[in-house]
Amino acid sequence: MKVAVLGCGRWGSFLAWYANKLGHEVTLWGREASKHYQRLVDSRTNDYLILPQTIHITNKMVEAIQFAEIILIAISAQELRGFAKQLNTMGITNKSFVLCMKGLEMESGERLSQVLMEEIQSPVNVAIWVGPGHVQEFVQDIPNCMVIDSDDMNITKWIVDSFGSDTIRFYYGQDLLGNEIGAAAKNVIGIAAGMLDGLGYTSLKGALMARGTKEMARLVKAMGGSELTIYGLGHLGDYEATVFSRHSHNRRFGEAFVTKEPFGKLAEGAATVKALLQLSAKYNVELPICQAVDSVLSEGSDPKEQLIKLFMRPVKVEGI
Amino acid sequence: MKVAVLGCGRWGSFLAWYANKLGHEVTLWGREASKHYQRLVDSRTNDYLILPQTIHITNKMVEAIQFAEIILIAISAQELRGFAKQLNTMGITNKSFVLCMKGLEMESGERLSQVLMEEIQSPVNVAIWVGPGHVQEFVQDIPNCMVIDSDDMNITKWIVDSFGSDTIRFYYGQDLLGNEIGAAAKNVIGIAAGMLDGLGYTSLKGALMARGTKEMARLVKAMGGSELTIYGLGHLGDYEATVFSRHSHNRRFGEAFVTKEPFGKLAEGAATVKALLQLSAKYNVELPICQAVDSVLSEGSDPKEQLIKLFMRPVKVEGI
Repeated sequence: MKVAVLGCGRWGSFLAWYANKLGHEVTLWGREASKHYQRLVDSRTNDYLILPQTIHITNKMVEAIQFAEIILIAISAQELRGFAKQLNTMGITNKSFVLCMKGLEMESGERLSQVLMEEIQSPVNVAIWVGPGHVQEFVQDIPNCMVIDSDDMNITKWIVDSFGSDTIRFYYGQDLLGNEIGAAAKNVIGIAAGMLDGLGYTSLKGALMARGTKEMARLVKAMGGSELTIYGLGHLGDYEATVFSRHSHNRRFGEAFVTKEPFGKLAEGAATVKALLQLSAKYNVELPICQAVDSVLSEGSDPKEQLIKLFMRPVKVEGI
Repeated sequence: MKVAVLGCGRWGSFLAWYANKLGHEVTLWGREASKHYQRLVDSRTNDYLILPQTIHITNKMVEAIQFAEIILIAISAQELRGFAKQLNTMGITNKSFVLCMKGLEMESGERLSQVLMEEIQSPVNVAIWVGPGHVQEFVQDIPNCMVIDSDDMNITKWIVDSFGSDTIRFYYGQDLLGNEIGAAAKNVIGIAAGMLDGLGYTSLKGALMARGTKEMARLVKAMGGSELTIYGLGHLGDYEATVFSRHSHNRRFGEAFVTKEPFGKLAEGAATVKALLQLSAKYNVELPICQAVDSVLSEGSDPKEQLIKLFMRPVKVEGI
């Protein structure tokens, strides 16, 4: 199979490496100005892996697109709309796009498959690739389970057949909406988890898991998805990687935020929480964890007060 | 309120300390031959706390029972039936018993409230006290959320009113069956988590959480409870403490088992898994994680093979 990977950060470069390892012909695209791209061109390596010479690296997007049948996209979620607009002139009819990012559009609250389909004017297939897994472990052959979802089970099965292995075992998703919301939302739970760690309340991460899944399940249900999707691999199944792992960018971001340590760029969850609050208003679903995280990040609220309020509020029945 | 605590191990001694701190009159009972009991009598201390002089310590169970309106039970789950038989002669009519243990009877597969009610011949109230929380943290005023459940909401509310505080915030449970199964079953998931840690597959604990909750939700539903209970504080909410925490006895037991390190006595989950497999047969619900754990613990199966088989089995739809 001819596969293009758009985006050459940690996850994109891994996807190229992995697709190549499975025997696909692979073109990896990155922006010319990207440090990640330059480093891969110069040395074929980054902090995680070495790209074999059989992977073609390019900064010409049209070349990557025209080459491939399946296009894996692994760029920043907030850049997807502008990116998608550029695709229309590149001969994309009937190609298959797989969104390998976890986020929602901050301005609109839209899911990434919605953003892509709004901007693309040709008939194409769209799927998502979500669930747990650390690049650092996959390159050492430590296996994990992930999810492919789309609105078309034939496409889902074809993507699974193309990318499943003993290292990544895919499950077929059956709720694109629920899996997209869930995959994005886990980053917000990751930030909340980091805040709890930073405040010395690590043991409240149990209650965070129970309350966080419930909050997101309510939202997905209100949006027309299945609440049980939240309890699958795409959301709850990603909590080890996001809520507990030392590799988790969002968890570390939340921890650094409350301990006032410097921490480079914003984590994806900081944009996602804005999108989720838009959905909260639109679908009239209370999202207390999202509100607490946003209030701390954007309004300067005291994290200890917000998080204690969240878990220590007056006695009530579970499930509400 | 007059409160008796039966059992003076880590959790029982904490319950006595905590009830005393809330202003209740407390009698703590332990077996005379118990090392825990002897140490508390001798020094009023153990590895976790110091018991104030206002707590009466006794080895005469009838004295503790007759003194109290509410009786908190924190003994080994497998000893409950023999224990309950002794209570009948002690004037227990209309007293309220709160089961503070997490387990199922290994021989029968029964829930602990069933075991208690089968043996007690007088009208009494029965509730359970489950959910996350480490003694080591509660004594430092690090708060957590827990659950009280019973078949009578008035009793549930009364127990919550009697024991809620800024340190332990209770939610009202509404599914006694689901919360008892869930609280017990989390120890089996804890053993599986420890096995994954010991094998270097820590990142599969995400998939374990998604598949473990689903497996237990199916069982609870088949037994007539609510599958969503499993995703509440009593099961999923206890995963931080059980699946991730260094304090978790069951997790450490599973880890030591696969790394072949010595580890004193069996963890409670090793008995609970036998009970769950009885329920699996009785209600015709497959429990693949429980079967894998039991197969490793009791039949000498290779843990790596069993656990890889569990997560890396052929592609399938989520939720099945």
